[in-house]
Amino acid sequence: MKKSIAIDMDNVIVDIEANWISWYEREFGVTVAREAMHGIPEDQAFPDPLAARSLLYKPGFFRYAPLIAGSQEALLKLQEHFEVYIVSAAMEFPNSLPEKYDWLAEHFPFIHWKNIVFCGDKKVIDTDFLIDDHLKNLDFCKGTPILFTAGHNINVTRHQRVNNWEEAISFFKPHIEGLSIVSELK
Amino acid sequence: MKKSIAIDMDNVIVDIEANWISWYEREFGVTVAREAMHGIPEDQAFPDPLAARSLLYKPGFFRYAPLIAGSQEALLKLQEHFEVYIVSAAMEFPNSLPEKYDWLAEHFPFIHWKNIVFCGDKKVIDTDFLIDDHLKNLDFCKGTPILFTAGHNINVTRHQRVNNWEEAISFFKPHIEGLSIVSELK
Repeated sequence: MKKSIAIDMDNVIVDIEANWISWYEREFGVTVAREAMHGIPEDQAFPDPLAARSLLYKPGFFRYAPLIAGSQEALLKLQEHFEVYIVSAAMEFPNSLPEKYDWLAEHFPFIHWKNIVFCGDKKVIDTDFLIDDHLKNLDFCKGTPILFTAGHNINVTRHQRVNNWEEAISFFKPHIEGLSIVSELK
Repeated sequence: MKKSIAIDMDNVIVDIEANWISWYEREFGVTVAREAMHGIPEDQAFPDPLAARSLLYKPGFFRYAPLIAGSQEALLKLQEHFEVYIVSAAMEFPNSLPEKYDWLAEHFPFIHWKNIVFCGDKKVIDTDFLIDDHLKNLDFCKGTPILFTAGHNINVTRHQRVNNWEEAISFFKPHIEGLSIVSELK
């Protein structure tokens, strides 16, 4: 049986930082540098954090967000060897539910609806691996936690870290090769 | 730590049979008896199964469905002793995502968004109990499966069966009492 990987959306396959910066710029005329988000929650990087948070409820915010570089190719590759699930804590922003679904359908049409989970707390999710940018998810996951670098988590020192999808694929290489050997033995 | 229960929506807290029958009647002028659904998939109980299935994609189908009797009181009670999660395979009908969210907000406002999961395959869900009407979910669940009676599953002989929420509460009574003793010992 293939091992399973749960993959978060925002900051992992969705470039929500770039999206947030560009929405703030368009709505409030202030450009925030990406580096301003380093080591702090994203909303705190904006001159008006409450105004920044209000953008999360605007129609289209989640629908037209850009991709994290290399995510499509990486998931396609991982899918050859693993059961890949998209697991997003979308329930906090119910307006995001149809937008995230449509975004996935556009950018990741190879992910079946059976492999999509929109939840609140990820504690009930049981997969062999979880790739996520948040400790609130990684600290309590049942499988192996993998921290995907985002501005807000750059100072985090626990958990295996991958800085991008190239590194993520490298991390899984031994697992992929291990699985190949097992399947050859069968 | 409280034990966790995952609770399905359709046919468990949502009376989707009654809803389907009343939509079919309104749209196609044919009244189907509830007993016609006994032992077969719901759509097969209608003179035109394809037409019946088309209703699942109509705006409002999931939003205004009636409740299963006793479900609100039962979940409120269970929540005192268990971590209660709503886990619905809503991803098959993406139009249902906001409707199911709003339905829950109206009828189960005491269920926090952190405890709601809309998924595809429930295999990745790990809770101590799963109350569901479908074998495709119960057969593969990681906890204790509990079959909630619906017309389509009346001939199923495996898994613990509860016919209604009164019986479900009775089933959990020993677990509740067990938990009380544990908490008294602390």
